[in-house]
Amino acid sequence: MIDLVFQGGDLLSKFVYFFGNNETDGKSSMKDLLGGKGANLAEMANLGIPVPPGFTITTEVCIEYLKNKEYSEEVIKQINKAIEKLETVNNKKLGDPEDPLLVSVRSGARVSMPGMMDTVLNLGLNDTSVKGVAKKANDERFAYDCYRRFIAMFGDVVLGIEFKKFDTLIEEKKKELGLKSDTDLTADELKELAERFKEVIKREKGIEFPQDPRVQLQMAIDAVFDSWNNSRAIKYREINNIADNWGTAVNVQSMVYGNMGETSGTGVAFTRNPSTGEKRFFGEYLLNAQGEDVVAGIRTPNPILDLEKQIPAAYEQLVDICRKLEAHFRDMQDIEFTIQEGQLYMLQTRTGKRTAAAAVKVARDMVEEGLIDRETAVTRIEADHIDQLLHPRINPEAELEVITKGLPASPGAAVGKVVFTAEEAELRAELGEKTILVRGETSPEDIGGMAAAQGVLTVRGGMTSHAAVVGRGMGKPCVVGCGEISIDTKNSLFRVNGYSVKENDYLTIDGSTGKVILGEVELIEAELNKDLQAILGWADKIRELGVRTNADTPNDAKLARELGAEGIGLCRTEHMFFGEDRIPAVREMIMAEDEKARKKALRKLLPMQKEDFLGIFHSMVGLPVTVRLLDPPLHEFLPSKEELNEKYKEFEAASDLDGMERVKMMLQRVDALKELNPMLGHRGCRLGITYPEIYDMQVKAIMEAACELAAEGTRVEPEIMIPLVGHVKELAFSKARAIKMAEAVMEETGTKVEYKVGTMIELPRAVLTADKIAAEAEFFSFGTNDLTQTTFGFSRDDVGKFIPIYKEAEILENDPFAVLDQEGVGELMKIGIEKGRSVKPDLKMGICGEHGGEPSSIKFAHDVGLNYVSCSPYRVPIARLVAAQSTIEAKQK
Amino acid sequence: MIDLVFQGGDLLSKFVYFFGNNETDGKSSMKDLLGGKGANLAEMANLGIPVPPGFTITTEVCIEYLKNKEYSEEVIKQINKAIEKLETVNNKKLGDPEDPLLVSVRSGARVSMPGMMDTVLNLGLNDTSVKGVAKKANDERFAYDCYRRFIAMFGDVVLGIEFKKFDTLIEEKKKELGLKSDTDLTADELKELAERFKEVIKREKGIEFPQDPRVQLQMAIDAVFDSWNNSRAIKYREINNIADNWGTAVNVQSMVYGNMGETSGTGVAFTRNPSTGEKRFFGEYLLNAQGEDVVAGIRTPNPILDLEKQIPAAYEQLVDICRKLEAHFRDMQDIEFTIQEGQLYMLQTRTGKRTAAAAVKVARDMVEEGLIDRETAVTRIEADHIDQLLHPRINPEAELEVITKGLPASPGAAVGKVVFTAEEAELRAELGEKTILVRGETSPEDIGGMAAAQGVLTVRGGMTSHAAVVGRGMGKPCVVGCGEISIDTKNSLFRVNGYSVKENDYLTIDGSTGKVILGEVELIEAELNKDLQAILGWADKIRELGVRTNADTPNDAKLARELGAEGIGLCRTEHMFFGEDRIPAVREMIMAEDEKARKKALRKLLPMQKEDFLGIFHSMVGLPVTVRLLDPPLHEFLPSKEELNEKYKEFEAASDLDGMERVKMMLQRVDALKELNPMLGHRGCRLGITYPEIYDMQVKAIMEAACELAAEGTRVEPEIMIPLVGHVKELAFSKARAIKMAEAVMEETGTKVEYKVGTMIELPRAVLTADKIAAEAEFFSFGTNDLTQTTFGFSRDDVGKFIPIYKEAEILENDPFAVLDQEGVGELMKIGIEKGRSVKPDLKMGICGEHGGEPSSIKFAHDVGLNYVSCSPYRVPIARLVAAQSTIEAKQK
Repeated sequence: MIDLVFQGGDLLSKFVYFFGNNETDGKSSMKDLLGGKGANLAEMANLGIPVPPGFTITTEVCIEYLKNKEYSEEVIKQINKAIEKLETVNNKKLGDPEDPLLVSVRSGARVSMPGMMDTVLNLGLNDTSVKGVAKKANDERFAYDCYRRFIAMFGDVVLGIEFKKFDTLIEEKKKELGLKSDTDLTADELKELAERFKEVIKREKGIEFPQDPRVQLQMAIDAVFDSWNNSRAIKYREINNIADNWGTAVNVQSMVYGNMGETSGTGVAFTRNPSTGEKRFFGEYLLNAQGEDVVAGIRTPNPILDLEKQIPAAYEQLVDICRKLEAHFRDMQDIEFTIQEGQLYMLQTRTGKRTAAAAVKVARDMVEEGLIDRETAVTRIEADHIDQLLHPRINPEAELEVITKGLPASPGAAVGKVVFTAEEAELRAELGEKTILVRGETSPEDIGGMAAAQGVLTVRGGMTSHAAVVGRGMGKPCVVGCGEISIDTKNSLFRVNGYSVKENDYLTIDGSTGKVILGEVELIEAELNKDLQAILGWADKIRELGVRTNADTPNDAKLARELGAEGIGLCRTEHMFFGEDRIPAVREMIMAEDEKARKKALRKLLPMQKEDFLGIFHSMVGLPVTVRLLDPPLHEFLPSKEELNEKYKEFEAASDLDGMERVKMMLQRVDALKELNPMLGHRGCRLGITYPEIYDMQVKAIMEAACELAAEGTRVEPEIMIPLVGHVKELAFSKARAIKMAEAVMEETGTKVEYKVGTMIELPRAVLTADKIAAEAEFFSFGTNDLTQTTFGFSRDDVGKFIPIYKEAEILENDPFAVLDQEGVGELMKIGIEKGRSVKPDLKMGICGEHGGEPSSIKFAHDVGLNYVSCSPYRVPIARLVAAQSTIEAKQK
Repeated sequence: MIDLVFQGGDLLSKFVYFFGNNETDGKSSMKDLLGGKGANLAEMANLGIPVPPGFTITTEVCIEYLKNKEYSEEVIKQINKAIEKLETVNNKKLGDPEDPLLVSVRSGARVSMPGMMDTVLNLGLNDTSVKGVAKKANDERFAYDCYRRFIAMFGDVVLGIEFKKFDTLIEEKKKELGLKSDTDLTADELKELAERFKEVIKREKGIEFPQDPRVQLQMAIDAVFDSWNNSRAIKYREINNIADNWGTAVNVQSMVYGNMGETSGTGVAFTRNPSTGEKRFFGEYLLNAQGEDVVAGIRTPNPILDLEKQIPAAYEQLVDICRKLEAHFRDMQDIEFTIQEGQLYMLQTRTGKRTAAAAVKVARDMVEEGLIDRETAVTRIEADHIDQLLHPRINPEAELEVITKGLPASPGAAVGKVVFTAEEAELRAELGEKTILVRGETSPEDIGGMAAAQGVLTVRGGMTSHAAVVGRGMGKPCVVGCGEISIDTKNSLFRVNGYSVKENDYLTIDGSTGKVILGEVELIEAELNKDLQAILGWADKIRELGVRTNADTPNDAKLARELGAEGIGLCRTEHMFFGEDRIPAVREMIMAEDEKARKKALRKLLPMQKEDFLGIFHSMVGLPVTVRLLDPPLHEFLPSKEELNEKYKEFEAASDLDGMERVKMMLQRVDALKELNPMLGHRGCRLGITYPEIYDMQVKAIMEAACELAAEGTRVEPEIMIPLVGHVKELAFSKARAIKMAEAVMEETGTKVEYKVGTMIELPRAVLTADKIAAEAEFFSFGTNDLTQTTFGFSRDDVGKFIPIYKEAEILENDPFAVLDQEGVGELMKIGIEKGRSVKPDLKMGICGEHGGEPSSIKFAHDVGLNYVSCSPYRVPIARLVAAQSTIEAKQK
């Protein structure tokens, strides 16, 4: 039983809340008890806005009913009392043969929830009362149309009979009579249909269609409650984290009719333009029509502004109500109304859904109108909104021929001609052609081609595969892990689901949804408008979490800074090794027989690396730049075995013995460097310890660049980051050498630069010994990509084979490479943060994995007390927004 | 300053402890203060055993001196008093020109510690007193021999002058005089050498050789203390976890001489035979000689038993002392003695080092003699001892031509002819030939060849590479990661360090040391003798930790049971998939286009899998058998691309279109299954979830086998283990199916079998969510191989490239795949144990990685409260022993 407790002066033993006619019990803040719809109907009634009277049965009754499958006496008493009151205020009685009270019955949970029972209209009609309605409205056809609709609706939503069973009868009838539209059916024909509908109910459910309106009502209420536990609703709750014990309320409301002649009508509207955000009343209506008709699209509705001419009093009243609602709810409203013989009734008001552009404009406008404050404006924008605004997207009106779907790895849409090699993509770019690069998977050698293409599509790879990471870094739309595709290199085409797509065929990819679409689809271009800039500016003032970027080139750095980055959190030096001018020296370094030869090759790389850093430091003047020393295994820089074998054949054919020898040696080196699991292999600081001269060169390049700029008076803040540390001694070793080199450079140049040496925390062992590592580190940067790999034991390049199945089987909710796994990886991070701060309470800690740009992960970073997130340039605005939202949310708690 | 505190009735302000002549201050239990040597000298004196009198300066003085570089007045006072007492009991005075007191000065820490200053003998000699000695001994040559030795020793160990600088002078002198041996030098020549030695000191150190014996003594004491902090000693302490603040004591002891004629002599002995353990006095001596001479090997010493005839009184006394020492120390003693003109002096006693066989025999005998109890006997055996006894080993007398060294992956030595393929090894085995299989790395296909060969040598791979794990499982000697070797397949040879070893050349490998030796070396066979069995029986009664085995075949299971295993902790089912009769069906299963075809192939495997389990359950009647469902990625079961390409060419040559098509399809599948990091890929329960029919078949086979045996009344305890779980839902999914299948089999067979379903804990995420996983699991088995891989981010197959460098640079002390990393992986395990037990306090937990057979890891397993370890059969006796030792150690704390 429900306890009797006081809350806000009310006894919670109140189960039924009346609304309308100055007798309203509820209010908008009671959504938990009355559901969203019921609470808002009550609120409108409280505001003096005309609402057809009705009552709401609370969610508590739902929970009790679902438990016991019956109602307490008190509940029944209160429902009966509410019906009585409804009869009184309407001056009509349920089932009255002359002038019956007709009602609608609707569900209404705390949040709008598809999957539950929707609506039963015209409840109260029966064989007798239908005649009263006909007489009273002086329109028999209207009455029987209502009646047959009610019976079918009742059969469908209350009794669970397939709607088709009723619909077929109408279709048959029309065929028999040679009619085209339902509206051509006469009163008698509708009456006949009503009879046949009742027979369907008898046949399907073995019961007579209930004639008693009280029974109709009770059955409808039961059905609403029961629908809380139908499978669609349960699934929806699971996906959206809605508690099973919330329950739904039931709204019973007097019917009003918009189809009672030319002074009647019905419409839906938004208080502002939901597409652009423009502050202008927006919507449509139909005269002499019911709500269904507006939706059904049989008649073309009129723009809402026309109503002013047709029913000026109602229009004026409507505009006034909209203003009142916006002022009250302080947000754009989505409303439904009906005008019955000149009298306006509001049927619903709720926060209006809107496009990204509208969300931003409305939020900013409302701040300027004084409706909301800046914090509220910041919370009104969703991360997805920014994502949409920052990337070109597919015109939602376009017809799409989707041929397969992959992982949405880097957002935005792209159109171009299919090419299968990076070289081809580069070649075409020079000719001004737009391409989509389609690859089995990408490797660092493809970077040029990826940059040249409009978008990238790969067969293998997950959300943090090479293609995905590089794609996001470049802001390049990217769909990966499209396992259904099989590339036929010989014939320059790929096959998928019966399609055969040839080189040069047009293809469109949507990196926000993973869709791969045949042909050239129209795109909508990106925009970073003033409204968004204003809101992000407010976010910056609110947030505590710093936002840096992952950038490897001066251009990226510049872009990120324009988008609001406060420094570089991850500058990957390996990408610099792939430049066409560098790769020969890099390979020479790898092929070196001994330290001396290796150093010689490194000396060639030094000036180039220094040039890189000069550019990057320049783009980030006055801001910290975290440079990660070389991380990937060396074999990534060598050509593949296949390539070398080809090369060998070429030399053989040309009898070039020298060339053959060189290729042979390189093949041997490729073999020697071969690893079964390169992700867990000879990389990161392991390289820096086994070949310390590599890191020496890199530190030298960093410090020479920094000193050169510092000597000119330019402020630089280099932070040297040692990757893949698992044991404090690894860090100690590399740090000692880095410091020695840095001091030597400063000594030589006679310049002082403040620099830091820190480490990535990207291995479980680093986390577990973070207290020891903290003693050596000047900062921590959580590398959540690698940490996710090792915590899950998932190779980010190989998860494509089972993550989709895991998501389908609901074993994983998200791809953990896209959304930080707070339960596992996050738990580990907390251990690391705590251990690290136990030794150095002020240790600066950030996150520089791909998660740094993902909203729930950014929020997590804020909540666990990290100092900053670092993400690809195009995610920087999102991070700024979400960081501010996290601060606001924490404050509200 | 040292505080004055009472301890055991003594004021700790005592800095110098006298021993000998019934005036002994110390005792054996004061090793912390007096060092091992000093404490044992004191103990012997206390026991009335004749010891040349002397005194010990405590370790506390060492620490104080090292801090302040000077001694307190009190210390100086006490040293002077001790010297006075020494002079009194010897009735000689330091520096007396007629009959000087001569002393030795030795270091002596708590534990024997190489790297510190060793010994200065004959201290007290100078230009004057040497003459007194000559006169008194009536032997000028003796006196000057002592003197020149003292100066050189003093110069070397006290002043730090290279010993070569003195030695060269002797060599030059002998050359000049045409002499062969030092003993040919006359008194005058020795006298001249002494003079020249003093010049060396002057030249090298700029000081005169000190003539004042007090100064000599002070300098020698300083030098002992300083040697505590020389780099060799520091390094030794680091490696052996000896605290820096222990310090060393200094022992100053009167000299005695065994070279004073035919009633004098000197010797070293063991109270029992240190090689066999036989209870028989064992050692050797020389008459008229000094300790150095016995060691130097210039004269051949006599067996100790001969002494009975030559100096019967002294011999009798010596035997008596040995008995007394053994009774007192309750262990075999390693002693040094000198007889000076018929008078026996004991110079040292300490616990004697012994071979494995001796250790076991001595321990068992001493229990039977009532000297020690069974617990003590168990603690007297080292894990290495058992290892030695269980594997053939290289005859320690053999001369070895070591050509390279790898990782000692599976202990024991093996001799055979070099072969380069598994097939060849199998072929030779059929011909009765012994082979060593040399491979780049091994793969599951090589298992037959590994079994057929005497030993396995691989170029790549670490301590838990395939070769290592399988080798240990088979008890097959194995050396892996021999990176210096390069195999030349075309010429059927391998090259290493200038050697070229051809097929059929004899090779010997030592899997206990990693040595690779050219030729056929003599081996000593293994023995599991009665003594060891008795001691292991005692261990079983003591230990709390269970010991299971990792076994995949009935034979392994049987062997392990004979060696004491109490069940199977890990039965890997994948090894069963490689059988020649199975692999076609396995490949058919992998090639299957859909579930139906896959199920068809699985139906063929079912009876074979069932047969496997029948055999294994039979070998383990009454004991639990944990069966791990399929773990490795499927591509491991397919032929390699190279092989398939070869095959294709064959079919092409034979115009076999069908064959070509089949190979082509398999090539496609190999490509589709290709993973960049298979260790983190589509394996373990990920297979069981994406292809649930595989696990269904395995569970069916397990349960059908179990039910069949149970129906015959045979007790079976199957435990079904789901591998690579990272999320509780993975376990829940596979467990639900397993239970459904198990119930179905029991239903069908009408038999009930108690079975469990549990999981491996081998991923950090499993540990971090162990509380959630525990809710679904009936047992946990820590898979420390994979857990080490993911915690460190090390691929066990690829670490060979940097682990040796890490060990050399002292970044890692041990290969974490050989010795459990307690700081990182162990820390993680503790979290898992705690979280798991927080939900199920009685949850059975074990460890089944390779660490289950490694002593320090077994001890860790005991200490953190695991229920059992599981290891390869040949490690079972070690685990039994170490488990018992862990219990004893914990009890003592």
